[in-house]
Amino acid sequence: MAAAANGNARAIELVLASEPWLVGVRPAGEVVPDLPANGILHAAPPTSWNDMSDLLRGGVVGAALFEGLAGTPEEAERAAAAGEIELRAAQDHSAMAGGAGAITASLPVLVLEDRTNGKRAFHFLMEGFGRTLILGMCDEEVLARLRWFRDDLGPALDAAIRAVGGIDVRAVIAEALRRGDELHNRNAAATSMLAERLAPGFVRAGVDSELQALAFRLLRENPQFFVAASLAATRLALDAADGIDGSSLLTAVGANGRDCGIKVAGLGDRWFTAPAEVPQGVFLEGFGREDAGPGCGDSLLVECCGLGAAVLPAAPAFWPLVGADETRARAIVDDTATIALGEHPHYRIPVLGDRGAPTGIDVLRVVETGIRPVIDIVMLHRERGRGMIGFGLTSPPLSCFEQAAAAFRERYG
Amino acid sequence: MAAAANGNARAIELVLASEPWLVGVRPAGEVVPDLPANGILHAAPPTSWNDMSDLLRGGVVGAALFEGLAGTPEEAERAAAAGEIELRAAQDHSAMAGGAGAITASLPVLVLEDRTNGKRAFHFLMEGFGRTLILGMCDEEVLARLRWFRDDLGPALDAAIRAVGGIDVRAVIAEALRRGDELHNRNAAATSMLAERLAPGFVRAGVDSELQALAFRLLRENPQFFVAASLAATRLALDAADGIDGSSLLTAVGANGRDCGIKVAGLGDRWFTAPAEVPQGVFLEGFGREDAGPGCGDSLLVECCGLGAAVLPAAPAFWPLVGADETRARAIVDDTATIALGEHPHYRIPVLGDRGAPTGIDVLRVVETGIRPVIDIVMLHRERGRGMIGFGLTSPPLSCFEQAAAAFRERYG
Repeated sequence: MAAAANGNARAIELVLASEPWLVGVRPAGEVVPDLPANGILHAAPPTSWNDMSDLLRGGVVGAALFEGLAGTPEEAERAAAAGEIELRAAQDHSAMAGGAGAITASLPVLVLEDRTNGKRAFHFLMEGFGRTLILGMCDEEVLARLRWFRDDLGPALDAAIRAVGGIDVRAVIAEALRRGDELHNRNAAATSMLAERLAPGFVRAGVDSELQALAFRLLRENPQFFVAASLAATRLALDAADGIDGSSLLTAVGANGRDCGIKVAGLGDRWFTAPAEVPQGVFLEGFGREDAGPGCGDSLLVECCGLGAAVLPAAPAFWPLVGADETRARAIVDDTATIALGEHPHYRIPVLGDRGAPTGIDVLRVVETGIRPVIDIVMLHRERGRGMIGFGLTSPPLSCFEQAAAAFRERYG
Repeated sequence: MAAAANGNARAIELVLASEPWLVGVRPAGEVVPDLPANGILHAAPPTSWNDMSDLLRGGVVGAALFEGLAGTPEEAERAAAAGEIELRAAQDHSAMAGGAGAITASLPVLVLEDRTNGKRAFHFLMEGFGRTLILGMCDEEVLARLRWFRDDLGPALDAAIRAVGGIDVRAVIAEALRRGDELHNRNAAATSMLAERLAPGFVRAGVDSELQALAFRLLRENPQFFVAASLAATRLALDAADGIDGSSLLTAVGANGRDCGIKVAGLGDRWFTAPAEVPQGVFLEGFGREDAGPGCGDSLLVECCGLGAAVLPAAPAFWPLVGADETRARAIVDDTATIALGEHPHYRIPVLGDRGAPTGIDVLRVVETGIRPVIDIVMLHRERGRGMIGFGLTSPPLSCFEQAAAAFRERYG
C-alpha cells in the first residue's frame, strides 16, 4: 500500500493548504464549468428523473420554473423525464447544491477562489429555512425570492465583495469556530462576520440604500446564510486533491434523497453509491420518524473536510437541536480523527486546547475500522413541499466505502 | 436575618428583570447626572489626587487635557491636586469607567436605558488597546482619537442607533454567550453583532460614506468595542436594586489602581474599601510580575452581574490568554453560584446545558463561605503610559466584604 501512502500525503497536504476567498457572486452560467443552458445541477450522486426522490424532484421542478425551462410543474416533469432538461450532480462541476436546492444558468452563485491554485467552487445563495428551493419547494414565493436574488441581491453582493477586494473565507471560518459555529448547521457568527465585511463594501460600491437595508435584513433573519461559503470552501479544498494518483482520500460525497455516493482522489470520476440512510435526530413538533426521508444534499461534504460534526464541540448551542451532548460531540471528533488523514492548521476547536479539526477522510481506514464520518444534517420531509422536520446525525453507508476500497485495491494492489 | 432575605429576593428580582437597550451616544455632560463641567469621573472607589495611583493619574491627566481643563500635563496635575478639577467615582453617577479611562462633560458616552424602569447608565466609547486613554495614556494620538469620537464617530453612532430604534443589548449579550464571548475581555462576537445592527442604521441615517468606512474599520480592528455596552448594562441592572432596604446584594465594585471598593444595596452610598490585589495571570512578552499594579477599572462589576469570569466556560478561546483551563473555568461558575443570589434567565452558558449565569453577589454569603467573585481583567502596567501587560484573574479583597457585612449586621441585626 506504499503507493496509497504516498498519494495520501500529497493529497492531504494540498487539501490543508487551500486558501478559499469569496471573490464574487455571478450567474452560474457565467462561471460554473460545463453548465449547459438546459442543465440543472443537484445534490450528488448523479441520478435520472425516474430514479429521483420525490423531495429532490421538488427542487428540480422549482429550478426549471425559475430558469424558464418549463412553464408549469407538469411541463417541467415531462421535460426532465424526456431528457430535455439535463440533470447533473453539482459536485461533478466544482459546485455544491445544499439540501434539495439546484443550480441553473441564471441563478447567482457565490464564487470562491483558491489562492493557492486558482481553482473555483460555487454554491447558490442560501435562501434560509421556511418556503425555499433548498427545502424542495417551488411556489411563487420561492421563485420571487430567487428572481430578487438574480436581479438585485446578487449584483449588490458582487459589487460589495469586489469593492473590499474579496473576503478571506478561511479567516472567517477559523474565527467562527471560536464563536460557536460548526459551519454546517450553525453559521450564525460567520454570517454576522460576513455582514460586517460586506457593510463597507456596500458603501464603497454605492449600493442603493433600500437594497442595502433588505440585504442586511436577509442576513439578520437568515443566520445560515454563510453555509453557502462553507460548502463551497470544502468543495474547493477537496478539489485540490482531485485526481491525485494513489490517494484513497474521499473527495466528494452527497446524498440525493435516495442514494448516497462518494468519490475518491485516486479513482477518477467514478461515484460509489448505495441507498442513503435516514438520519437519527430531533424532530420539530408535529413530525416523527415516519416523515423522514433518506439524507439529501451535498452538505455531507463539510464533515469530510474538517467542519460540521467533525468540530461539534465548538458549537454547544447547536447540540440540543441535533440531540447530542458533550460526550457525544467529543467522541465524534475522536472517531473522525481515526479515519482522517490530517489535522487542519487553521480550523481549530478552542475547547479542546485548539486541537486541529480532523480533516480528509481515508476510505481505506473507514473500511479497516468500521468508523464512518458523522454528519449533522437538516432532516427534510420525504415528500416535496413539506420542508424541514428537524436536525439529525447520519453517515454515508459503509457499502460506499467498501466498494471504493475494493476498486482502490484492484487498481493499486 | 429575615429582613435581609426579604430585601434580597426583591433586589435580585429587579436585577434579573433589567432590559438594557442602547438608545444613543451623547456627550456625557448632556446625560450623566450631576457631572460638573470641571468634573472627571474615574474608576471606583472615590479617591483624591494625592492618594491616586500613578496609572489612574495618567487617565485623569488625559481627560483634563481632552476637556480643556488644563493646557499641559503639569497644569492638569496642579489643578487636580488643588481641587480645581473635581474627581468623582463614575459608579456614583450611574456611569462606568473601564481601566484607567475617565469621563468628562464633552466626551461621548454610550447611553443605555432600562426598559423596565427608565433608568440610564453610561460608558465612554471603547478606544481599543494600544495607545489609549483607557490604558492610562494621554499623548496626542490618544487625544486626537477622542476628538474624532466627539466630533464625528459619536454623532454618527448616535444617528445610526436612533435610526434603528435602539439596540437590544440583552439580546446581543444572550446571543454572544452562544458565540464564545464572556462579555468582559472577549466581546468579539458582540462587537460584530453591533456592527451588523449599526450598518442599516448608518444607511437610514444617511451617514457620510467615508465616516461609515472608518467606523466599520474601528469596529473590525477593535473586537472589544462592545465592552462599553456590557459594562453599562451591568451598571444598569445593579442600579435597579440600589437602595433596596434589607438587601445584602453587592451593587457596585471597582478598583482604582490602589484600592478596591464595594457598595451594598441596603447600605446607601457608602463604599467599603481595602487595598486592591495584584491580578495573577499571563503576561505579554517582555513583562512580569514586578510590572503589574493592583487592579484598575470599574469592569470588576461585570463578574458581579452574571458575565465575565462568571460565565468563563462560554468563552474557551479566551482561556489561554488568562491562564485558565476548562476545569478552572467551570469551578469559577460553581463557586460564583454559591455566593450569588440568582441565575440569569437570559444570560446562559450553552456548554453547561444552558445553565443560567450566576448573578448578583451576596456580601453575607461571601463572608460566610470565604468565596469571592473571580474577575478576569486586563493587567495594566503600574506606571502610567506603559499600558497593557497581560490578562489575569483577581478578586476584590475579603476585607471589603467583611466591613460591609459588619455594617449590614449593625444596621439590620
